[in-house]
Amino acid sequence: MAGRTLRLTLSYDGGAYHGWQIQLSVPTVQGVLTEACGRVFGGPVRVVGASRTDAGVHALGQVASLSVESRLYPLAIRSALNSHLPPDIRVSEVADAAPGFDARRSARSKRYLYLLDNGPLANPLLRRYTWHVPRRLDLGAMTRALRGLRGKHDFSAFCAAAGQVRNPTCTLYSARLVARRGLVSVLLSADSFLHHMVRNIVGSLVEIGRGHRAAEWMTDLLSGRDRRRAGPTAPPQGLTLLRVSYPTDRLHSGG
Amino acid sequence: MAGRTLRLTLSYDGGAYHGWQIQLSVPTVQGVLTEACGRVFGGPVRVVGASRTDAGVHALGQVASLSVESRLYPLAIRSALNSHLPPDIRVSEVADAAPGFDARRSARSKRYLYLLDNGPLANPLLRRYTWHVPRRLDLGAMTRALRGLRGKHDFSAFCAAAGQVRNPTCTLYSARLVARRGLVSVLLSADSFLHHMVRNIVGSLVEIGRGHRAAEWMTDLLSGRDRRRAGPTAPPQGLTLLRVSYPTDRLHSGG
Repeated sequence: MAGRTLRLTLSYDGGAYHGWQIQLSVPTVQGVLTEACGRVFGGPVRVVGASRTDAGVHALGQVASLSVESRLYPLAIRSALNSHLPPDIRVSEVADAAPGFDARRSARSKRYLYLLDNGPLANPLLRRYTWHVPRRLDLGAMTRALRGLRGKHDFSAFCAAAGQVRNPTCTLYSARLVARRGLVSVLLSADSFLHHMVRNIVGSLVEIGRGHRAAEWMTDLLSGRDRRRAGPTAPPQGLTLLRVSYPTDRLHSGG
Repeated sequence: MAGRTLRLTLSYDGGAYHGWQIQLSVPTVQGVLTEACGRVFGGPVRVVGASRTDAGVHALGQVASLSVESRLYPLAIRSALNSHLPPDIRVSEVADAAPGFDARRSARSKRYLYLLDNGPLANPLLRRYTWHVPRRLDLGAMTRALRGLRGKHDFSAFCAAAGQVRNPTCTLYSARLVARRGLVSVLLSADSFLHHMVRNIVGSLVEIGRGHRAAEWMTDLLSGRDRRRAGPTAPPQGLTLLRVSYPTDRLHSGG
């Protein structure tokens, strides 16, 4: 039987993990998933994730790819994997993918949510999934600031280690803000994201929302391409990878 | 200085606590709050809670009353208490109340939310705050069943220890269901609730939603007044005390 390429869609609470990427002696999502795959498929499996989410970052639509030798139906694989995974990691979908499908390299765009708790006091039921910013934020200024980021730019100003990135250019397809009942959602989608890019954008955005900086500061930062001038990195627990999109022809197996 | 009666409004994540009520050697919300009050007011304080929430049950609007000797402003008390409380318990409001105000005895009505995750797979980010029921629920039947509970009834059928209750009659002011994106909210408000009443109603409601019972079963249970005939008790983590209401004259101090 020839190798079969699978695409897994995953949700996880990143609170207990040192991020996606496998590491020795600390729990990571990739590590736990690789172990579960090993049990289900009876041998070592290499799992590739679309996004290397950082420690404490969550996902509702992470995508992973792997090649296996198995005749199990996708639904049976999903059940088997979930029965070997802890409740803070769930496989929501298993599908056969076209040969050569690679969750990371084939990705066309990703969508992230950063959630701010802007109530005067932190909501204890949301504290694991939000950044609590008690001071009332200027949502108008934040919306204007986000608008200036849309399109194709060099995002070095918001990259954790700008010098080491081969290509710091990303196309931000959408950047918007939705506020409701004291919660502020920052939604960003782009063809690719640099390391810490969402959290660094949100860190600067909150500086603007607090009135420490004008909305125009965001585009100044962007054109300056200097990480040291931007705001602090927003904490990880507010960030959730919502969705990874692929060109249609990469998704489906020929069968 | 004469004793001063305070009303505290509290939010908490019940996941780490053995319920509201103070117990020796296990962490409880009342225990932790009593300790924080002792530090802020410099002596033992008796804290009365409106609802004795069970282990694992959450609150966004629990109310507590206490008598203190203190000249601190309410906002200063709130800050001081929050600085002594862990992040899973927050005091959202401190107010002076009329003398004799008792969070439990003065309460006129309470409002609870029970949240069901009705997606095919549990959402890991909601697992601490929902009961996951994977099978698609019949929301029409559940809505009809809830309708039959409204009004003044003997709720012994849904009480954990019906025989021991002095007065099993409660008036259910509202009982409704809101479904959105795979989440089903059951919202109940009443003048009082018996022990486990919300969770027992929801347990029976889910039996109806799953098609194991007809909608009319709910009113049959109610009139039968027999706990043994009702459905299982729904798990605690889906339950949140949203709000406690008081007659206006009980709330404000005379000053």
